[in-house]
Amino acid sequence: MTDPHRLAARVDEIRHFGVMAVADEAWRLEHEGRSVIWLLAGEPDFGTPPPVVEAAHASIAHGKVHYTSSLGIPALREAISQHYDTRFGADVPVDRIVVTTGASGALSLALAALVDRDERVLMTDPGYPCNRAFTRIFEGVAATVPVGADTGYQLTADHVRSRWDDRTRGVLLATPSNPTGTVVPSAELDAIAAATTELGGTLVVDEIYSELVYDHPPTTVLDRLDDVFVVNSFSKTYGMTGWRLGWLVVPEWALDAVARLVQNLYISAPAPSQWGGVAAFTPEVTTEVERRRTVLHSRRDLLVEGLRSIGFAVPVVPQGAFYVYADCSAFGPSGDVAHRLLHEAGVAVTPGDDFGVHDADRHVRFSYTAPKSRLTEALDRMAKLLS
Amino acid sequence: MTDPHRLAARVDEIRHFGVMAVADEAWRLEHEGRSVIWLLAGEPDFGTPPPVVEAAHASIAHGKVHYTSSLGIPALREAISQHYDTRFGADVPVDRIVVTTGASGALSLALAALVDRDERVLMTDPGYPCNRAFTRIFEGVAATVPVGADTGYQLTADHVRSRWDDRTRGVLLATPSNPTGTVVPSAELDAIAAATTELGGTLVVDEIYSELVYDHPPTTVLDRLDDVFVVNSFSKTYGMTGWRLGWLVVPEWALDAVARLVQNLYISAPAPSQWGGVAAFTPEVTTEVERRRTVLHSRRDLLVEGLRSIGFAVPVVPQGAFYVYADCSAFGPSGDVAHRLLHEAGVAVTPGDDFGVHDADRHVRFSYTAPKSRLTEALDRMAKLLS
Repeated sequence: MTDPHRLAARVDEIRHFGVMAVADEAWRLEHEGRSVIWLLAGEPDFGTPPPVVEAAHASIAHGKVHYTSSLGIPALREAISQHYDTRFGADVPVDRIVVTTGASGALSLALAALVDRDERVLMTDPGYPCNRAFTRIFEGVAATVPVGADTGYQLTADHVRSRWDDRTRGVLLATPSNPTGTVVPSAELDAIAAATTELGGTLVVDEIYSELVYDHPPTTVLDRLDDVFVVNSFSKTYGMTGWRLGWLVVPEWALDAVARLVQNLYISAPAPSQWGGVAAFTPEVTTEVERRRTVLHSRRDLLVEGLRSIGFAVPVVPQGAFYVYADCSAFGPSGDVAHRLLHEAGVAVTPGDDFGVHDADRHVRFSYTAPKSRLTEALDRMAKLLS
Repeated sequence: MTDPHRLAARVDEIRHFGVMAVADEAWRLEHEGRSVIWLLAGEPDFGTPPPVVEAAHASIAHGKVHYTSSLGIPALREAISQHYDTRFGADVPVDRIVVTTGASGALSLALAALVDRDERVLMTDPGYPCNRAFTRIFEGVAATVPVGADTGYQLTADHVRSRWDDRTRGVLLATPSNPTGTVVPSAELDAIAAATTELGGTLVVDEIYSELVYDHPPTTVLDRLDDVFVVNSFSKTYGMTGWRLGWLVVPEWALDAVARLVQNLYISAPAPSQWGGVAAFTPEVTTEVERRRTVLHSRRDLLVEGLRSIGFAVPVVPQGAFYVYADCSAFGPSGDVAHRLLHEAGVAVTPGDDFGVHDADRHVRFSYTAPKSRLTEALDRMAKLLS
């Protein structure tokens, strides 16, 4: 008799987020009365803009609480299509836009549609840990590529060519990236897309942080590329993480497949979130996003400069998102550093091993999801501890 | 060079819901001014009870719009655990309850945790079509078992024993079932559970319709079995389909695996839905569910009797859900019958081939998700057409 309590093999390769253990410990310390500055989260400290809240309230009050069309309510798909046009001059037809249950849903759908068993998907190490899980659950292989400061912690077309083999299905990149906040330069991104197509693969681009960039205006690959999957989300841009709302832009040839997958796997994205999401594209919310971008920009500058002056190495200034991926090796292995920062300075940060194995013990991730006064306090505490 | 536009093999086996094509046609007819009675939907025509709406509104207004704990907010997990205790005397610890993004999320998690590539999961034909998809996406095999009126359209322990082989991982059953509305008798369910364990497999029980039963009080397998996965949802019981909120009860030995999966694949279920869901377990809502159950009960009796008098065969009275799976072979193949009912009588029903292949062309599914006056009108129209 076989063991009735056996788990699927894939489960062994899917890990807890280490950040959760740090968060549990930080909560415990706070509960004991200790002061903790949280630079830990993968979500902004901003809330959901009032117009979105009001639109969601109104839809619920009007009884719009049933399943929606599985591809998303037409008003939201049209708003997203219009957004690409007005903001980027990009022609993204409504038909190609699939509303999803967060970027999580979008990543699941893209990989389920593309990746056959044992097929490889190229992605960075360090990178968003769930990307490895989304590939593995469908019996694909997350082919991680160690990247460092020399390539801005991002893939290059050379990486793609040198790592390609006949089991490689495609490339998944995130720009800006979690945990590094770095952006793939447009020319490099185009070279990656060309190499991927030439090699017979497909490119998936995660743009969930694309509105949160500080050194140049926001961009999208969709202003020049059609034959890509693009993942996006309301979570980070609009402070809507808990609403679980995102979207996937799908190339024509995969539309029918993705439609079938979304019907079967999700039925539809949450209705109140979708109705709320329509209001995210109003001028009032756009103004609020601009304000938040300015705030995050100045937090970034403060944090990068402060970390460098303490002795953390930040060889590449992160151009976006709300993360600084800092080399902490001057102070010890990252697990020890994170533990000391939390317990001795009351500063909660994420150790590098949440994001991969490559140089993970030399890095910690700081999230600048706290006001500048708290960031300053955190820097002071760390300087005292580490100097 | 390989085709860069190739899709994963699994996609070929995941189908559109046929019901969507019928719905599109019905919308078109309505748009032309035709009267259509919708007996099509997999969701109740009832809305979300006011206490749930108010709780969701309040949580959003208070800024509870961030990611939640990935297993669900403690208040909701505790409310579900308490519900099992007060309603069924079942001891289901909070630790074993994982809040999910609808029953869809719960089914995904259970099958991702259990099923290795090429492993088989036994399930009924006819059955909920997504169950086949959830198995296939993780590279498992949906091993469908043709079932008929002789077993109440449900699996038996004999089925499990006779269909088992060394690649079988477990059994997935739904009680009551979609599309048949039939319930697995308690003694048979216990025999299935015993057979499954004895054979070295795991049982997954979908109880999403378990509160909507008409001939006996609601039940759960959790009042006597621990070593099972149980899928449930707020959708059908509480009129909350669009909120995408469900839960999975997980056996102890799989808790850590499911926790890792849910972190990576979903992050968390929608926050406003979770806060709303807490209010679903209040006395006011319980009273409303009782009222709805009474309404559905009387609709069922009306529809079953009416269909039989027209000449549809309903050999087993469906004990639950809001479906009648009727043999329409006296009037022709089910696709033709459904087409005629829609176009010539203005009655929208689902052809049997959405639910499998076994005798699918002899059956259509009627959803009694319309008031009795409309059901009566639908029966009159069908009687005129078919007599």
